[in-house]
Amino acid sequence: MAFNIGLLGLGTVGTGTAEILLNPEGRHPLIQDIKIAQVGVKSLEKKRTIDLPTDIITTDLEAIVTNPDIDIIVELIGGLEPARSLILKAIANGKHIVTANKAVMARFGPEIYAAANQAKVYVLLEAAVGGGIPIVEPLKQSLGANRFTNIIGIVNGTTNYILTQMTNHGADFAQVLKEAQTLGYAEADPTADVGGLDAADKISILASLAFGGKINREDVYCEGITKITSSDISYAEKLGFVIKLLAIAHKVEKTEPEKLELRVHPTFVPKSHPLASINGVNNAILVEGQPLGQVMFYGPGAGSGPTASAVVADIMNIVGVLHSNKKAEILDPLLSCSPQNYCQISPIEDVYTRFYARFLCADVPGVIGHLGMAFGQYDVSLESVVQIGFQGEFAEIVVVTHQVREGNFREAIAEILSLNAIKEIPSIIRVL
Amino acid sequence: MAFNIGLLGLGTVGTGTAEILLNPEGRHPLIQDIKIAQVGVKSLEKKRTIDLPTDIITTDLEAIVTNPDIDIIVELIGGLEPARSLILKAIANGKHIVTANKAVMARFGPEIYAAANQAKVYVLLEAAVGGGIPIVEPLKQSLGANRFTNIIGIVNGTTNYILTQMTNHGADFAQVLKEAQTLGYAEADPTADVGGLDAADKISILASLAFGGKINREDVYCEGITKITSSDISYAEKLGFVIKLLAIAHKVEKTEPEKLELRVHPTFVPKSHPLASINGVNNAILVEGQPLGQVMFYGPGAGSGPTASAVVADIMNIVGVLHSNKKAEILDPLLSCSPQNYCQISPIEDVYTRFYARFLCADVPGVIGHLGMAFGQYDVSLESVVQIGFQGEFAEIVVVTHQVREGNFREAIAEILSLNAIKEIPSIIRVL
Repeated sequence: MAFNIGLLGLGTVGTGTAEILLNPEGRHPLIQDIKIAQVGVKSLEKKRTIDLPTDIITTDLEAIVTNPDIDIIVELIGGLEPARSLILKAIANGKHIVTANKAVMARFGPEIYAAANQAKVYVLLEAAVGGGIPIVEPLKQSLGANRFTNIIGIVNGTTNYILTQMTNHGADFAQVLKEAQTLGYAEADPTADVGGLDAADKISILASLAFGGKINREDVYCEGITKITSSDISYAEKLGFVIKLLAIAHKVEKTEPEKLELRVHPTFVPKSHPLASINGVNNAILVEGQPLGQVMFYGPGAGSGPTASAVVADIMNIVGVLHSNKKAEILDPLLSCSPQNYCQISPIEDVYTRFYARFLCADVPGVIGHLGMAFGQYDVSLESVVQIGFQGEFAEIVVVTHQVREGNFREAIAEILSLNAIKEIPSIIRVL
Repeated sequence: MAFNIGLLGLGTVGTGTAEILLNPEGRHPLIQDIKIAQVGVKSLEKKRTIDLPTDIITTDLEAIVTNPDIDIIVELIGGLEPARSLILKAIANGKHIVTANKAVMARFGPEIYAAANQAKVYVLLEAAVGGGIPIVEPLKQSLGANRFTNIIGIVNGTTNYILTQMTNHGADFAQVLKEAQTLGYAEADPTADVGGLDAADKISILASLAFGGKINREDVYCEGITKITSSDISYAEKLGFVIKLLAIAHKVEKTEPEKLELRVHPTFVPKSHPLASINGVNNAILVEGQPLGQVMFYGPGAGSGPTASAVVADIMNIVGVLHSNKKAEILDPLLSCSPQNYCQISPIEDVYTRFYARFLCADVPGVIGHLGMAFGQYDVSLESVVQIGFQGEFAEIVVVTHQVREGNFREAIAEILSLNAIKEIPSIIRVL
């Protein structure tokens, strides 16, 4: 049985996908049943590294998603529009969807899944998170017996590369970003990566899968790595931590209605933690559930080959199901998605976390006492307070707190800023 | 739609499985459709920690696998017989199978799969390898687009616990084994674990999935950890390695017919390697393929909860497929298994690997020269030769080779043993 796919986009991932499908030898035999029927591109003139018959390449993407001969649309153009409209039109035309588009799925997932469920088609998105690392399918299938409590991921390769370089070479953010751009690890406009937006899209998708609800993408607290300095990295090192941009989804226990914490921010990660040793452009996602305990998935989070591996896996999954059941009246509930209500997301003030904060203070007696008093007043209990040295005439003091309510911590910080002896608070970073 | 399962065995994993199924709240909604119809046990008298209606518990396992009301048989009794016969009888009666039994699947997989394909039922075995870590399903589904080249795993928790303790505390094998037995991490008869047989079962299963062929379990080279001494561990440490029991499946390039290396043995693993930091009873499996690159799966390799998580995932997978398609005439080719020919396994002599060897020699001039000459004669090229100290009157020399054909290395060793100056070769360990 042969299945026709329509490929939207022939960039890095599209080319990688076509390469796998055109070279099935040595792979799963099912790939031989998948035929690239049409490919949609922006420009017919662009030079390609892959050899495809010219008559299947078109700039008319609408014609592909409405082509009655096509079974599965593979959307690899990225961005919000026209991706969203093309996906919806393809669904309305009875096509199954495979997409690597985290932005569109994080924002329009509920709309797209609702349309897909009505049209009885699948929408799969393994490639949208973690590149070649299987994480979407494990959450939907292999780990589905669990009550999930935590998903903690390093899900953006660009920022992990930058932080790794800053850690290994004591370099500054701006300098490493420039290098990363030269090497192709960072975009010309790096905002989505270094601002944490890409990671926030991805954790929205994972949280929706793990906790079975819709996520309002705007509710994800998001802080990037642009303010991280080489001083913070070297203090982290001294205190036994490395700094990583983490995307965290955490189910808050015993709240009614149930609440999630959902956030992306640079984090002090203890060196002994499995995520601390994930370096360079690699990604890793740690999943915690009951009765499973903790599992971690590690691998290449981006790149043509790894991402194409995930895209083709999704195509194969749909083809596998269609093979035994071409016109299903009922979708396989493990492959389909029907998130019900919106998850309640805790405002960042209600999140409980540890903090690292660095203060520049006048070198007068009693400063540590004042700090301690101010924190104590807001129930912020301290794990350590260390005067670490001097910057010019100012003493540099580093504080690590125990688990505290973020709102309380912020109020304490506001009060501390009003103290005469406090000159500046150059950095505040959450601690895992 | 409700699905009835028959549970064979109510030990640790069986109890964990029942606990998940009896407490579906907060898990995937599909679990609510799964009903424990019958449970087969050895003794009705045994006290249970779980509350099941007494009328569904029986010692008549044959009656369960032939019960026409049951859709899926979950085999958790372990061992070869009666497990094999019960599985085959269940298949003959049209039941789908979920099993955690690596021993029976490593030895009788081809027979069982053939019967299952004929009867159009699924046989799933996620729990047989890696406990709660998803590895079977990723190999079958999420990574299926790849040409696999390597699977390298720490797949036995008992031996990893023992080696970790030996490494951290400089303790001897026998002493740590005793502790592990007290803690319940090792069986009273530890042969299958410490002899590497359990790991060999598991790598046979993974290799068959990744490389799509049948594996003759007897062809897996297998060496346990019983001869590892605290000296070896401390020399490994000095040379920048840790010792791990690895299970390795490697596709040999450019052989006609295609060949696999398939082996279990203690291995010097470079400290920078992702598998080097997997400690205690945890498992990890590294998968390499094209175009994927390298991914690693890490987590709890055993225990009631994690293993039950995998068992229930398999049940859900079958239920998910049956939901949309109760009487399929064609099985989903990604969920079913039809290994074709037997894989050709390279004899251990033809394997290419690095070696570490420790020699006790007379302290006379020229010994290192003699060693070097003997190795050179058999094309064994050396990476380092270090005289590390003395044991009594004998000099202790440690050699690390480059990648060599194992047969050549063995011939060189035989020749070296005949040298007058060589007293003993206390250890030979392969190097990753």
